[in-house]
Amino acid sequence: MKLNELLKNIGLDTAQKDIEIDSIKDLSHADEDDLSFITSKKYIDDLKNTKAGAIFVIKDLAKIVPHNSIGIVCDDPYLYMAYASRYFKKDLLSKEYIEPYINESATVSNRATIGSNSKIGEDSTILHGAVVGENVVIGKRCTIYPNVTIYNDTIIGDNCTIHAGSVIGSDGFGYAHTKDGRHIKIYHNGNVVIEDDVEIGANCTVDRAVFGSTIIKRGSKIDNLVQIGHNCVVGENSILVSQVGLSGSTELGRNVVMGGQSATAGHLKIGDFATVAARGGVSKSIEGGKVYGGFPLVLQKDWLKLQAKILKFIKK
Amino acid sequence: MKLNELLKNIGLDTAQKDIEIDSIKDLSHADEDDLSFITSKKYIDDLKNTKAGAIFVIKDLAKIVPHNSIGIVCDDPYLYMAYASRYFKKDLLSKEYIEPYINESATVSNRATIGSNSKIGEDSTILHGAVVGENVVIGKRCTIYPNVTIYNDTIIGDNCTIHAGSVIGSDGFGYAHTKDGRHIKIYHNGNVVIEDDVEIGANCTVDRAVFGSTIIKRGSKIDNLVQIGHNCVVGENSILVSQVGLSGSTELGRNVVMGGQSATAGHLKIGDFATVAARGGVSKSIEGGKVYGGFPLVLQKDWLKLQAKILKFIKK
Amino acid sequence: MKLNELLKNIGLDTAQKDIEIDSIKDLSHADEDDLSFITSKKYIDDLKNTKAGAIFVIKDLAKIVPHNSIGIVCDDPYLYMAYASRYFKKDLLSKEYIEPYINESATVSNRATIGSNSKIGEDSTILHGAVVGENVVIGKRCTIYPNVTIYNDTIIGDNCTIHAGSVIGSDGFGYAHTKDGRHIKIYHNGNVVIEDDVEIGANCTVDRAVFGSTIIKRGSKIDNLVQIGHNCVVGENSILVSQVGLSGSTELGRNVVMGGQSATAGHLKIGDFATVAARGGVSKSIEGGKVYGGFPLVLQKDWLKLQAKILKFIKK
Repeated sequence: MKLNELLKNIGLDTAQKDIEIDSIKDLSHADEDDLSFITSKKYIDDLKNTKAGAIFVIKDLAKIVPHNSIGIVCDDPYLYMAYASRYFKKDLLSKEYIEPYINESATVSNRATIGSNSKIGEDSTILHGAVVGENVVIGKRCTIYPNVTIYNDTIIGDNCTIHAGSVIGSDGFGYAHTKDGRHIKIYHNGNVVIEDDVEIGANCTVDRAVFGSTIIKRGSKIDNLVQIGHNCVVGENSILVSQVGLSGSTELGRNVVMGGQSATAGHLKIGDFATVAARGGVSKSIEGGKVYGGFPLVLQKDWLKLQAKILKFIKK
Repeated sequence: MKLNELLKNIGLDTAQKDIEIDSIKDLSHADEDDLSFITSKKYIDDLKNTKAGAIFVIKDLAKIVPHNSIGIVCDDPYLYMAYASRYFKKDLLSKEYIEPYINESATVSNRATIGSNSKIGEDSTILHGAVVGENVVIGKRCTIYPNVTIYNDTIIGDNCTIHAGSVIGSDGFGYAHTKDGRHIKIYHNGNVVIEDDVEIGANCTVDRAVFGSTIIKRGSKIDNLVQIGHNCVVGENSILVSQVGLSGSTELGRNVVMGGQSATAGHLKIGDFATVAARGGVSKSIEGGKVYGGFPLVLQKDWLKLQAKILKFIKK
Repeated sequence: MKLNELLKNIGLDTAQKDIEIDSIKDLSHADEDDLSFITSKKYIDDLKNTKAGAIFVIKDLAKIVPHNSIGIVCDDPYLYMAYASRYFKKDLLSKEYIEPYINESATVSNRATIGSNSKIGEDSTILHGAVVGENVVIGKRCTIYPNVTIYNDTIIGDNCTIHAGSVIGSDGFGYAHTKDGRHIKIYHNGNVVIEDDVEIGANCTVDRAVFGSTIIKRGSKIDNLVQIGHNCVVGENSILVSQVGLSGSTELGRNVVMGGQSATAGHLKIGDFATVAARGGVSKSIEGGKVYGGFPLVLQKDWLKLQAKILKFIKK
């Protein structure tokens, strides 16, 4: 889409130069045919080094926009990025249907739906009512149980099992906000990547990334009713017990254990081999190799001590 | 149904006068062809002013029943209302099938099911495995993702999106209890109304009202795995983050924000522009415009102070 | 399967004697054609009295294995049981299709799927997109709402209702762990049994037992988004409010009430007529007839007192 047509659509003045825009990316991933945006001064270094073709920017930062980029001055770059994102959303159902590839050894129920251009690997089983979107890849020896929904562009490795009712690749929960309190959807063009040997329980939800991928690494095991937000990374061999919630952009290291109903705020890291006890609430990054609990989170042994004191206090 | 036939069915003595009963409603909404009930003396004013044709009432309150109403004395009006409710439940599948209206610009998968007498508006998309019940109205430019279930009588506005696996209009969790500990279902004949510009995430549940409507007002955005109980009202532009639970008859004002895993007890109000932090537990009505947290709920800044004190206490 | 073939498959030395093994069971349920295992010295009495044909056992306990049993010495009996379990997993789709029995008075949508050898009783209704697995029994006057998934071997009594999107009989969350941090699936060959008069809300998950049955007893009522782990027993007329989570092998007595978002650790018992308030976290067995709350759990009245003290403390 032409930049100036886009700007007109979202109510901004046109730029002096016009270019073709293919997609929206963050500053560090954007290329000359991408549109980008800066939301905070802490990304100034990214702004200086970006290759983005055009950038939504506030007035104060306009002079830092690199010479090869077009700075588009506006009062709320995040909001205008949201307005722009709907012009890059992909069709849910492609106009041109490409027959999916289903390996002859795979078993696909005639009541499952496999979308255009998707691939189902050797010895995989797709059960009744499962809906596999478009451009999806499912590896070898996978089992997709009934009524699972896999959104477009999801990539799943070998030996994976997804139990009934789970939803993989739904839109992340991302909105920009207008001054009068409305929420403008940021269309999510990223995807979900699930590596080999992953098992996901029933009625879980795994959101697609806004840009890039939400990733569940090999060997991870996820119980029922777990929520994994957009752009999360779940490290190798991690364990997420039932009703866990990971907010957007949480990164788990390898062999992390999250107990039942535990949760994280977004944009934080949990180190390798960390354990969060049931109900633990992680609100900032934590080191690996330790056992945590409580909300706010402390070392689990401290939480247990504290609770023992509180019990005594009650008995007084 | 004739009142005396109903009373016989549920094991009560017949009334001296017989009337036709169309439905069960609460005292303030009931009309002359409705059956009603009074469960507590705090509704005495409603009893005095009701237009209900017949009323389940305890002996002590029988003399307050208006002259135009028939008082049906019983020891547990709520329980007998529950017994009676099953005689007014609607058929899930209507005997007479009325061809649904699907606007010619709408896209409906041949693997979606659209029930009798439902309407799908312009440019809406209903994807594979979605089940739209009977007498449902879906507005313009809506997207209903795979394997969504929309129960009978749901009304959805324009520009709404419902992600995969969500369930709209399931029965509320309402039972009366017998003396020997059994739970008698109160059949829910209300519905769900979703206004324009609402987005609902994956694997959410929104229960229908017992009488009247559960309402989600325009512009609200709801993340994954959220529970909204019967007869809730979610105000305009509210935001409910993943795994929130609203108990029955919760009323949110406009632009309320409920953080991840926060929840409410039922029958309370949250004022406009209130924010409940992640995990906050709301057990009574709260004023708008403030930020709350903790369980029991306090102002978030007080909760943070308290937690800081507790952390010091641990380190001693 | 022959024992020695199995042992070769999982990398163990063959036994001096070979027998036919039909299934894996725990020590107290195993018979002469079953394989069993001992994971802890606290089960020594079970070991002494077992009738199992063969038993995975650590070296120290090998001499206690009964004379009629074959002791298979290994360093991690639980892990080898997990490796072995995959050789006993049942086919999801049976090779020989047996026409299901559907009572002529039942209503089954032509968009519902009923698996081989299943039975649907009088006056039951199975709605669009529901998937009923193989060897499932559904009693009389049941309603199975759209997009419900019922896994193979589930048994459901009379007058049961299961709301849309719920999943009954998914695999329990059980793994053994290798020294290098991988998780080896324990295949679950148990099932789910739901007795008469049970109602289950929308988007719930009820896991099958590893051996034996997960049981929901008559008259229990379960709200939306509830998780019930493998091998749980929910007692008669119990009530589980929305977003409750029961970990594996939790046993509730009769008329237990679990408030919204409350949860249990596994392998514990809750006595008859106990109530756990909303958000209560049960980490060890509790007596019946009392009201509990908080996390860690205390008597609800103590929790309320404590919170009152904390509120005063905040105001200082």
